[in-house]
Amino acid sequence: MDKTVGVLGGGQLGRMLVEAANLLEVKVNFLDAGRSSAKQVSNHDDHIDGSFKDPEAVQKLAAKSDVVTIEIEHVNTEILEQIADQTDVQPHWKTIRTIQDKYLQKELLKSHGVAIAQSLPLDAPTAEDLEKAGKAVGLPLMLKSRKEAYDGKGNFPVRTKDDFAPALEALGGNKNLYAEKWANFRMELAVMVVKTKEQVLSFPTVETIHENSICKLTYAPARGVSDTVNSQAQELARKAVACFDGKGVFGVEMFLLQDGALLINEIAPRPHNSGHYTIEACPVSQYEAHLRAILDLPLHTEDLELREPAIMLNILGGDTPDSHRKFAAEALKHRRTRIHLYGKGQARKGRKMGHITVCAPTMSEAETIIQPMIDYVDQANPQSTRSASAQPKESQPLVAVVMGSDSDLPVLQPGLAILNKFHIPHTVRITSAHRTPTWMASYASAAASQGLKCIIAAAGGAAHLPGMAAAHTPLPVIGVPVKPTIGDGLDSLLSICNMPKGVPVATVSVNNSINAALLAVRMLGMSDPGMRRRYEEYMVESEREVREKDTRLAEMGAERYAEVYLAKK
Amino acid sequence: MDKTVGVLGGGQLGRMLVEAANLLEVKVNFLDAGRSSAKQVSNHDDHIDGSFKDPEAVQKLAAKSDVVTIEIEHVNTEILEQIADQTDVQPHWKTIRTIQDKYLQKELLKSHGVAIAQSLPLDAPTAEDLEKAGKAVGLPLMLKSRKEAYDGKGNFPVRTKDDFAPALEALGGNKNLYAEKWANFRMELAVMVVKTKEQVLSFPTVETIHENSICKLTYAPARGVSDTVNSQAQELARKAVACFDGKGVFGVEMFLLQDGALLINEIAPRPHNSGHYTIEACPVSQYEAHLRAILDLPLHTEDLELREPAIMLNILGGDTPDSHRKFAAEALKHRRTRIHLYGKGQARKGRKMGHITVCAPTMSEAETIIQPMIDYVDQANPQSTRSASAQPKESQPLVAVVMGSDSDLPVLQPGLAILNKFHIPHTVRITSAHRTPTWMASYASAAASQGLKCIIAAAGGAAHLPGMAAAHTPLPVIGVPVKPTIGDGLDSLLSICNMPKGVPVATVSVNNSINAALLAVRMLGMSDPGMRRRYEEYMVESEREVREKDTRLAEMGAERYAEVYLAKK
Repeated sequence: MDKTVGVLGGGQLGRMLVEAANLLEVKVNFLDAGRSSAKQVSNHDDHIDGSFKDPEAVQKLAAKSDVVTIEIEHVNTEILEQIADQTDVQPHWKTIRTIQDKYLQKELLKSHGVAIAQSLPLDAPTAEDLEKAGKAVGLPLMLKSRKEAYDGKGNFPVRTKDDFAPALEALGGNKNLYAEKWANFRMELAVMVVKTKEQVLSFPTVETIHENSICKLTYAPARGVSDTVNSQAQELARKAVACFDGKGVFGVEMFLLQDGALLINEIAPRPHNSGHYTIEACPVSQYEAHLRAILDLPLHTEDLELREPAIMLNILGGDTPDSHRKFAAEALKHRRTRIHLYGKGQARKGRKMGHITVCAPTMSEAETIIQPMIDYVDQANPQSTRSASAQPKESQPLVAVVMGSDSDLPVLQPGLAILNKFHIPHTVRITSAHRTPTWMASYASAAASQGLKCIIAAAGGAAHLPGMAAAHTPLPVIGVPVKPTIGDGLDSLLSICNMPKGVPVATVSVNNSINAALLAVRMLGMSDPGMRRRYEEYMVESEREVREKDTRLAEMGAERYAEVYLAKK
Repeated sequence: MDKTVGVLGGGQLGRMLVEAANLLEVKVNFLDAGRSSAKQVSNHDDHIDGSFKDPEAVQKLAAKSDVVTIEIEHVNTEILEQIADQTDVQPHWKTIRTIQDKYLQKELLKSHGVAIAQSLPLDAPTAEDLEKAGKAVGLPLMLKSRKEAYDGKGNFPVRTKDDFAPALEALGGNKNLYAEKWANFRMELAVMVVKTKEQVLSFPTVETIHENSICKLTYAPARGVSDTVNSQAQELARKAVACFDGKGVFGVEMFLLQDGALLINEIAPRPHNSGHYTIEACPVSQYEAHLRAILDLPLHTEDLELREPAIMLNILGGDTPDSHRKFAAEALKHRRTRIHLYGKGQARKGRKMGHITVCAPTMSEAETIIQPMIDYVDQANPQSTRSASAQPKESQPLVAVVMGSDSDLPVLQPGLAILNKFHIPHTVRITSAHRTPTWMASYASAAASQGLKCIIAAAGGAAHLPGMAAAHTPLPVIGVPVKPTIGDGLDSLLSICNMPKGVPVATVSVNNSINAALLAVRMLGMSDPGMRRRYEEYMVESEREVREKDTRLAEMGAERYAEVYLAKK
């Protein structure tokens, strides 16, 4: 903590970095223009005014700093190579140099066996070259600049031969291009990885939604993605970052393909837009993690865990110079909303001016809170080509309702109505313990990693489903005995309830799916105060209803009451 | 958000205030010495170097600012009164003037019917005056300076007549003293209150632990305090703050007396040490809440709710100038630990140099994480008179295990062993549905507000306890049927399970308290990933045990196995 950090660049990433550094009394010197975003929140005389591409200025910064790092990768790595003799440069200048060239970046990853899209280098290509490339990697393909490309700049999608001419017109002047195989992805994921002296750690897997190739939204954790894919994505991201020398955080963007495979899209050797959410959502933010990594300070796996589901929405410049401030004023009207403005002055159309983060006990609560703010952004940009994936998704189900046979469904319907009444996202499935034993086992085993919180299982007769599900999951299982065609259902009840010591099932009475659902609501309310409040309101309402009946009965007398109210039944 | 805020004082409270302001692009001008703590994180030319007691400097600040506020109440309110003609001063200068004089502060509260300790003004008292005061309010009493007192400075406890002379020696030169009735408190609580243009809102009730009259620890929420007391404390705090004019946050410190009554101790008209935890633990911090209040920006009740239990530990200056940085280096070794250093340079003994905050899914987890850091602090200050209440408390129970009769206890013991195995804080009580119906009802009704998360209820025969408990609480209730003297327990099981629609009980099999406890573990694991990991380990371990038995059985043959292993039973 006694070391001074020098940073090339002083934009919003530098600003959030120094906000973390201020907490630790770590001095940070920025090299950037006068009152740039980062310098505004760090008041001392050792910042350097100038361009982070100016060799002399970088030398000056190095002379004042024990560790030099970057908040943008488009730096002069020759100078970094020079100053590395006298100062610690993190991550290694070779890493920055390799990553700067997206084609080399991918070649390096490929040589380490990391899954990436097939790529072909193209040096000032002609239409003919594009035709060849199209044969090699297939059409559509993505024509990309190897260097200085970000936020979609330097990329051109080539869908058919008709796109060759416009593609060459847009990027043809550039010698350093490459063609990348089109990734037919289901969604885009991102993982922030921290490379310390000894370890490679990772933050959770998040879902990113881009609009016009600029990051718009980040959902942490990624919605509708199993813990298995989540872990695979983190492993892939750690494996990719382990290929590079040096310390610090790395932003790893990847594609989840339609077939479930994961592919690295690209890597940033610095804090990243897709990691902003960590400021509120994790015990240690990506910015503090970067500092801890480059300064050899301790960092723990648990520091990078998610405290609560979070959604980040970027604030981009709109049509007026104060559009971002107007949006912020609007956002303040919403609960649980944390605003970050970057101090960049007047807005330019599409420029990143700030972001907001909403954390809540459940993702569906966070989605509900942020939706009006997404709507506000979308209204302000009617001409924007809204990406299909920006549409609200179905919420991550919290409760799985399973049955052995569709004949049990009518018994479960009153319970499903209760789940709907309490706005609990749920999924309803048929997983028979006897006719689909493997499917039943795999479904129950994966339930926890799918983000489910509890299982309601209905079964009649032998009624093995609830107990078998409980044997395969650490989640609480609620068993609903179904009355079979023969007998009163006591057999179902006892079969569900009489589990051996070690594997519990929460049993309710025969056909009572309402109580099963209410039990699930009570369980979710243990950690979600809003849910508990709604349950308490339900209890009051339910008491009121019975008291009204009592009043009516007293007023009408038993005989008339039975005629009017019970005759119907 | 377009208004400029001027702040008298630029210490750590100002620093954390401007950290919040930076996020909203709200410009803050500080009046304080050169590179004071707050100015270090706010880089512009409109700060004013000087004393916040200097009338001219305050005038200058006012001329540059749309709203003037304070981060310390020991300011010159005559000047605030003057500038109030040209600038908005928040909170109102009258409020600051009244609060500055602790005796007047209490008189005002008293006149509004707010519970405070009995107080007597003493103007340059003699031993005789103290004797009279002792008769009026009783001995021991607290002799206090009316003004300029903080962190225990200006307070002198007068326990017996022997303390008169030393008390007068310590404070006697001061004309403005008062005697305060001794508060025999069970614990000290604090609530941060936000007074906006229209509303009086409050953060949660926290527990504060003082050492040598300086705040050492804050526990949010207060441990072992019912939601009822929690709400009462918030109501009292809001009522107290409503007595004062103006907008902003107020720190309200109070005593919870042995008899359960609440008494205001004192009020600070600004952000407060006991509210630092809000930075990590609430959607909006006390600092941002102060800004939103004085700038008439929106604020919502839910913004002030607790996201996770949190503990704050102050970092006080030790014996060496870098003691606080050494402590911070030590604290970094612990997971989930957020460090705040204030940039105050070299430490002075006992000076507030920073603080740490630990948030975790449960209070007992937060306590486990922070304990070594408390131990480190205590080791470094062996001569400190450690307050008895700084000792770790029994953890907030998460599970209540209740039974109708102590004869059910043996059935519950294996379940209690499971709760202990999983380190789940729990409480065991006798609440008979038939012999103590009122007590049973009041216990179950209060359970949620006591911080309990679920109830395990055992009963035999008529076995009404689980269902009756469920009727009184929104928490999940797990019913354990106990085998009665007559019959096999099926009667107990059906009585517990067959609840009417609307009131669920999670029923396990007869005498199976192990499954009841495991069900509670699964429920807690829904929102506590650490608990779920431990449960998964338990499942693996349990599978391993059975597999070992199977191997042994296969090796030994059935006959020999039965002889060796089953004969004992």
